[in-house]
Amino acid sequence: MRSVLQLRTPQSGNGDQHQFGGLNGKPAVKTVAASVRFRDPQIEMAHGAGGKASRRLIEGLFAPLLFNNTAAPLGDAARVEIDGSAVAMTTDSFVVKPLKFPGGSIGELAVNGTMNDLAVSGARGQAMLVTFVLEEGLPTSVLSDEVHAMAAAAERAGVTIVGGDTKVVERGKADGMYITTTGIGKFMAHVVIDPQSVRPGDKIILSGPIGDHGITILLARGELDLEADLSSDTRCVLPLIETMAEEAAPGIRWMRDPTRGGVATSLNELARDCGLGIVLSEEDIPMRNEVRGACELLGLDALHVANEGQFLAVVAPEYTDAAVNALSQTAGGEDACVIGEVRNEPSCAVLVTTRYGGSRIVDMLVGDPLPRIC
Amino acid sequence: MRSVLQLRTPQSGNGDQHQFGGLNGKPAVKTVAASVRFRDPQIEMAHGAGGKASRRLIEGLFAPLLFNNTAAPLGDAARVEIDGSAVAMTTDSFVVKPLKFPGGSIGELAVNGTMNDLAVSGARGQAMLVTFVLEEGLPTSVLSDEVHAMAAAAERAGVTIVGGDTKVVERGKADGMYITTTGIGKFMAHVVIDPQSVRPGDKIILSGPIGDHGITILLARGELDLEADLSSDTRCVLPLIETMAEEAAPGIRWMRDPTRGGVATSLNELARDCGLGIVLSEEDIPMRNEVRGACELLGLDALHVANEGQFLAVVAPEYTDAAVNALSQTAGGEDACVIGEVRNEPSCAVLVTTRYGGSRIVDMLVGDPLPRIC
Repeated sequence: MRSVLQLRTPQSGNGDQHQFGGLNGKPAVKTVAASVRFRDPQIEMAHGAGGKASRRLIEGLFAPLLFNNTAAPLGDAARVEIDGSAVAMTTDSFVVKPLKFPGGSIGELAVNGTMNDLAVSGARGQAMLVTFVLEEGLPTSVLSDEVHAMAAAAERAGVTIVGGDTKVVERGKADGMYITTTGIGKFMAHVVIDPQSVRPGDKIILSGPIGDHGITILLARGELDLEADLSSDTRCVLPLIETMAEEAAPGIRWMRDPTRGGVATSLNELARDCGLGIVLSEEDIPMRNEVRGACELLGLDALHVANEGQFLAVVAPEYTDAAVNALSQTAGGEDACVIGEVRNEPSCAVLVTTRYGGSRIVDMLVGDPLPRIC
Repeated sequence: MRSVLQLRTPQSGNGDQHQFGGLNGKPAVKTVAASVRFRDPQIEMAHGAGGKASRRLIEGLFAPLLFNNTAAPLGDAARVEIDGSAVAMTTDSFVVKPLKFPGGSIGELAVNGTMNDLAVSGARGQAMLVTFVLEEGLPTSVLSDEVHAMAAAAERAGVTIVGGDTKVVERGKADGMYITTTGIGKFMAHVVIDPQSVRPGDKIILSGPIGDHGITILLARGELDLEADLSSDTRCVLPLIETMAEEAAPGIRWMRDPTRGGVATSLNELARDCGLGIVLSEEDIPMRNEVRGACELLGLDALHVANEGQFLAVVAPEYTDAAVNALSQTAGGEDACVIGEVRNEPSCAVLVTTRYGGSRIVDMLVGDPLPRIC
């Protein structure tokens, strides 16, 4: 692997996307001790949930073996040099259950999710590859709907699907279909995502209300006696990020789409990667009443619930107003706001100050209260 | 999709990899009539087998919808321009059953298969992304073995794994694991893969014996009362192709790795794409006695059996000796030989002349005698 000389280290920190990054070039953002070994005897649902168990699996098994025991920084997209040009690339498999849900479906999610991983890495997706693992007996109408959904999502996102692959597995496997999308694109000028550039005083911007996707999927499964007028927030956030970058690119330090594991997991990873504290003001975090109510009933922390159309950004204080103004004047960014800031303390942790004057430390997601969310 | 201006059309013809290619630039090699619709009511195993049913699915559903009803050429890798540099990219999902088999395993197959799709497109893989869909309850030792296998295969192939994603699905859903790999790389100088450049008189070169992989998988399932001293041919063919290109690059017209659907399907696709006839000499096609025997017992045509470490090349007659000599002097290419040639007739078909003076037309694979082969 060291023989590929044109590879450079990805820029960003650990992703709830479970991206694991390259080797050479820039020093690792956060080193993975070679002694960390994955000791869990078997794979559990929690290893796919984006929280602590996922991290153990990646840092204890994938990173040291696939990266030859070298420290590996982890990011939402990798940076690869081909013929002198920097190319951003990212991949994700989608296994969401059910395949369709209010506000979206697996096909749309698969296109938007990969575009978003590139966007929060400061890249515009240009081309996409798609693979389908299909279940024998899948009605053609169901597949056709998803292919339509992908085509529409790709057109909206401005990306071209250039290739793919199809496999079929026996009845009972693959829940209808699993989709894997891979995107490649070009990095935006002047946007550098680097958790080590984050400084105390920087502001945390959130693009809109949290928890819509996770709670929508949970309700769509029909296992709970709950109904709510709620739909997934799945969308491509690239237009919002481009708008923000136009006005505030030099001030953008870090971005992430808080999917599996939610806002709390993404910000805990940032806190760990930059060694600083993230302090959030609970009353400033936008959330629909339906999400709040469902979380209270189910005993979930909305900060751990997945989003598919939101992003977090850490922006230098002098660029914060410009960034928020740019977002809030753009369609779909009306609810963007500052939800907290970076401080020296609590080191490597996320603190939420509540509306009643108290505060609590919010950890990464532990376990998997909502499996198969994306 | 038409908004992405830097995309160019992939160069090659229809792949048994089920790649479906881009839009703009060069005229389509073979147009897909907008009127072709996929009418099968549901997905069957044959739709994943790489033969006629797969082609119906791709040409009748994926291509027209994802490519907006425009004619789309199909190839083993797509060609995308990022910042003025041509990037080759390809993706494949692997669902082989069993996960381990004599001569290889799913992890090794996933790395080699994607490197080979790039290689037969005239590209050197540089970076790879990997996704795992893991089954709940999968022993860590099984996963660890595959991660080791991937790391070793990547090192042998000279490619760096730069990122990935992990999902977990419930027990019973994913046969242990499904792996998707995506590779990107750089095109080799002076190698242009284009079925429309194929001319009568060109020679068909095969890199080595056929059928090892498919028969090995079949026997490894243990459902037949057959044993044979046989192992998968999985390997990265890039070194062989690079050696051949050094000596014969201007004469190379077309290449393909004959995986699902075997040599017969790959060459039928070529015949269709170039409008010419492919005439093979049966006695010149290298094949182990174990493969021949198993095919006779099972009623299979070895020309339809999958390979994972061989490639076909169409080479101009004046470069044929140089190409074969280069291959046969390289480790792993000792059995490379000319197995036939391109003629005007039979138009768009593959004819095999037998050792007894007869001849037969060999069609693409129909149905799926060997599901889940890769």
